[in-house]
Amino acid sequence: MNIINILIVSPMFKELQPLIEKGHIQKNFRFLPEEGMTSEDLDWADALVCFNLKSNVDYSQVKWVHSLGAGVDRFLYGKSWNENVLLTRTVCSFGQRIAEYCLSYILKDLQFHDQFHVAQHQKNWHPVTPKLLRNQKVMIYGTGEIGQQSAKMFSALGVEVYGVSLSGKNKDYFKEVMTVESHFPRLSEMDYIINTLPLTEQTANIFTEKIFDRLSNAGFINVGRGATVDEGALLDALNQKHVRFAVLDVFSQEPLPKENSLWEHPNVHITPHISAVTTPDEGVACFIETLKNIDESKQLGNKVDVEKGY
Amino acid sequence: MNIINILIVSPMFKELQPLIEKGHIQKNFRFLPEEGMTSEDLDWADALVCFNLKSNVDYSQVKWVHSLGAGVDRFLYGKSWNENVLLTRTVCSFGQRIAEYCLSYILKDLQFHDQFHVAQHQKNWHPVTPKLLRNQKVMIYGTGEIGQQSAKMFSALGVEVYGVSLSGKNKDYFKEVMTVESHFPRLSEMDYIINTLPLTEQTANIFTEKIFDRLSNAGFINVGRGATVDEGALLDALNQKHVRFAVLDVFSQEPLPKENSLWEHPNVHITPHISAVTTPDEGVACFIETLKNIDESKQLGNKVDVEKGY
Repeated sequence: MNIINILIVSPMFKELQPLIEKGHIQKNFRFLPEEGMTSEDLDWADALVCFNLKSNVDYSQVKWVHSLGAGVDRFLYGKSWNENVLLTRTVCSFGQRIAEYCLSYILKDLQFHDQFHVAQHQKNWHPVTPKLLRNQKVMIYGTGEIGQQSAKMFSALGVEVYGVSLSGKNKDYFKEVMTVESHFPRLSEMDYIINTLPLTEQTANIFTEKIFDRLSNAGFINVGRGATVDEGALLDALNQKHVRFAVLDVFSQEPLPKENSLWEHPNVHITPHISAVTTPDEGVACFIETLKNIDESKQLGNKVDVEKGY
Repeated sequence: MNIINILIVSPMFKELQPLIEKGHIQKNFRFLPEEGMTSEDLDWADALVCFNLKSNVDYSQVKWVHSLGAGVDRFLYGKSWNENVLLTRTVCSFGQRIAEYCLSYILKDLQFHDQFHVAQHQKNWHPVTPKLLRNQKVMIYGTGEIGQQSAKMFSALGVEVYGVSLSGKNKDYFKEVMTVESHFPRLSEMDYIINTLPLTEQTANIFTEKIFDRLSNAGFINVGRGATVDEGALLDALNQKHVRFAVLDVFSQEPLPKENSLWEHPNVHITPHISAVTTPDEGVACFIETLKNIDESKQLGNKVDVEKGY
């Protein structure tokens, strides 16, 4: 594939430009915010590098689209994709980032941070023994790059890690991987549930009462996609104590609307989609590596399977 | 050493009794709370197993004292000890427990838990990128069992771990171990300081402005002993931002008195000496193992060096 003209469209284009130019790449670049992009730019470009275009761009005008994020549902979910166009995505420290995000909230729970915070406010010396990671069971939905890196970190810390995937194929660092169909009877044992699933036709609204009702007082962490969760079912599960608390980084609508009742639920912790941020440095490094691999006709580790949606 | 009669003195004696009796040990036991212990009990006993006796017991009446805690300053600090009496201490999952405690508070900081909590209260969607463990430097005071296990966990997670000990001898999992005298110039690089030091003549009041003034906005975690820290100097350092926040599990006086100003400092997190609790199960397991090793004249990994004080 011959890539000469590259269009970088991002609200961060001014940050990306010097980082890319530092690489002295022999290509033609245009750096733009989305609102400055014209159809002439798209005609000119062989490749489009972007994060999240709001308008309905026809991506089949270019040969290659590189997503500055890991999730590519914005390009594929509920849309059709011209299979002649290569789609790649950013894979960098997401696994590490998401694993540390999840670990931080599990440890916050095991170490009773909130309880001790309240006790401090009351000047109340009330010892309670924290729980150890090695006595915990965690179920991770999604056993790809991100799920696997979380499983690696957790299992190294002594946690018993189970996985759920479409194939149910065993993967390193998981004690056992199950399919969606086969995993239900195991849910009641789990202390924590982590969702890392991408949004695809198969995963949309996968978390309903069918899963939640089988949990017994588990913590639920969503770092995948908001639209994989039926929010009403989650709220019911929280109120019925099937879910003891939820840590949510992703939502069907982002930013989460002010009127959404999740904001005020006492057992919900909300973060603004920060568990797997692409820093400009990392995003540029991944783009440059992908470009180099394309130029050298090497195999691409971050090529999206458009059929599967990830 | 011939141990026949064993006196177990603890507020938890009713919990300890069935756990010890389950072991079917061919010894004579008496289980008592401290206020029920008489001088006749001490005359009878070859060994005394206890946690924290309030009265001034003359330990030289027995052959062996086993501490149900890891710290033995209650037996040794500012006191004299008859060297003919063997002193052993509980070593069990303390290292793991303390490492997870410290990790939980470092991750709470790196993942901006408090900031996102405030933002949620205001229904404010304000993304900030969490920091990664692999970009952090941690200095651990104390490179013994507990310090080393924290170093092991942190270094496996990519943290750069430095140690401070009396000898400055290199140990596994530390990038570098320094002596107290040599470590001062390195303090300004550190993101977090963890104190695991026992209380001895050498460590009492070791954390003064001499250390704190050299920190630049670091987090300070104390899981060692309260009396190793000059509290006034710590408060000054917090107010001058040498110390960004402090997580304190141990205090010179415990429970921490209500009038102590640490309770109300906005950048101090207080926990009630829970980072390394001995659960009855673990305490009993360690005691039984030590007894077995004594009976078989094996080397004791948990024998206290009375001169050193740990």
